Amino acid sequence: MQRYFINKNVTENSIIIDDKNNCHHIKDVMRMSVGDKIIILTNDKKEYLCKIDSITNIVMLSILESNINNNELDCFTTIAHALVRREKKEEVLRRLVELGCSEYVPVEMERSIVKINKLNENIDRIHTIVKECSEQSERGLLMKVCNAIKFNNFINNYKDYDYKFVCYENSGRKDDYSLNNYLNNLKGKKILCVIGPEGGFSDNEINLLIDNGFVCIGLGKRILRTETAPLFIMSLISYQSGVKNV
Amino acid sequence: MQRYFINKNVTENSIIIDDKNNCHHIKDVMRMSVGDKIIILTNDKKEYLCKIDSITNIVMLSILESNINNNELDCFTTIAHALVRREKKEEVLRRLVELGCSEYVPVEMERSIVKINKLNENIDRIHTIVKECSEQSERGLLMKVCNAIKFNNFINNYKDYDYKFVCYENSGRKDDYSLNNYLNNLKGKKILCVIGPEGGFSDNEINLLIDNGFVCIGLGKRILRTETAPLFIMSLISYQSGVKNV
Repeated sequence: MQRYFINKNVTENSIIIDDKNNCHHIKDVMRMSVGDKIIILTNDKKEYLCKIDSITNIVMLSILESNINNNELDCFTTIAHALVRREKKEEVLRRLVELGCSEYVPVEMERSIVKINKLNENIDRIHTIVKECSEQSERGLLMKVCNAIKFNNFINNYKDYDYKFVCYENSGRKDDYSLNNYLNNLKGKKILCVIGPEGGFSDNEINLLIDNGFVCIGLGKRILRTETAPLFIMSLISYQSGVKNV
Repeated sequence: MQRYFINKNVTENSIIIDDKNNCHHIKDVMRMSVGDKIIILTNDKKEYLCKIDSITNIVMLSILESNINNNELDCFTTIAHALVRREKKEEVLRRLVELGCSEYVPVEMERSIVKINKLNENIDRIHTIVKECSEQSERGLLMKVCNAIKFNNFINNYKDYDYKFVCYENSGRKDDYSLNNYLNNLKGKKILCVIGPEGGFSDNEINLLIDNGFVCIGLGKRILRTETAPLFIMSLISYQSGVKNV
């Protein structure tokens, strides 16, 4: 059934959809009629099964059922990703939404090819991507996409986590076993994973991360690209906290 | 160090690179000179550290060291994927190579949007993608990309596996725990995972798969796209057989 995230309040028995994009999708893309059913999500893990009462320039719904969306992972994961080109970033965002990621932070690092002062981003486009992927993958919460920040600001502002990992290809394998220990104990945890740019972290960045309590983890013997590493680690977290324990 | 897969035999002390693409890359892209070192891979888990002796229309190398490439997973994984559009397929191929997949089989299913008789594929392009990704991710073997086949041929020809999984969103969660048991016992195993098209498997296909010994596995509560599911399952296999056990 078609799902729509809306950001307006909901009354006890009815919902009004008045934002352009959702109304357009219901009327012109899905060509729905009065009496059709849809699911409305309010970005607080609640979902409402609704019946369409009228379609004009707004859509009026009556609520048939309200439920808790149970599709979110039982941990909060922030992926901090080196700035990458727009197409790569959008591809990563799509996959991370499906895999249950909570938050995405683009970080300018020494060897990032893309720099903050040359960013030319369409924020509306990013929000549309996240919203549509969230609806399709049946999430109960929208992944938050933060504004890009510089590495030092990232280190200073992202401190309040239970686990802080840095995916580092030169970490050797000494910490891999500990990754397993962490993965077996994700419930209710706040997790932060940092992934470097195409050229890798600088020594200075790695030292700063370690000084700030980050644990170096390896992702196997092969070299993963900067756009693959987030999907790999998020797949493991998703499996451990969403599939394995069901 | 730059890596090149070649498909010619190697003598005891020297290697000749005579294929156009590798020669072009060494001469014109990397602008290498006599005395520079490169690594040659022969698609049999062997790798040779070499020194360039001469560069003309061919490249002559002397072997300094021969080693076993140790970056392959200790299991053999075939991903059988519903036919998808070319861009999606190429994206999936890139990721699967990095994650250590052994073989990729495109399968025409009832609800595949793309059909075999309308395929217009550039086989050279696919081989170049796999070769370059394998070199960059430091693999010792090239992932095999099979020709697209129809579902019934797939069922009849892919039988000789230790584990056969079908990723099925309606499987409920009853089999998830058993997935975990399989994942803990991958060493030396031949694994086959089937992933359906955008519209999902037909009932007929699911029944045929189950009749042929496939185990339905769920990939979590959210709905994964057909281009995300292969990366999810291959990440789990890669982690379990390549990272966790090191």
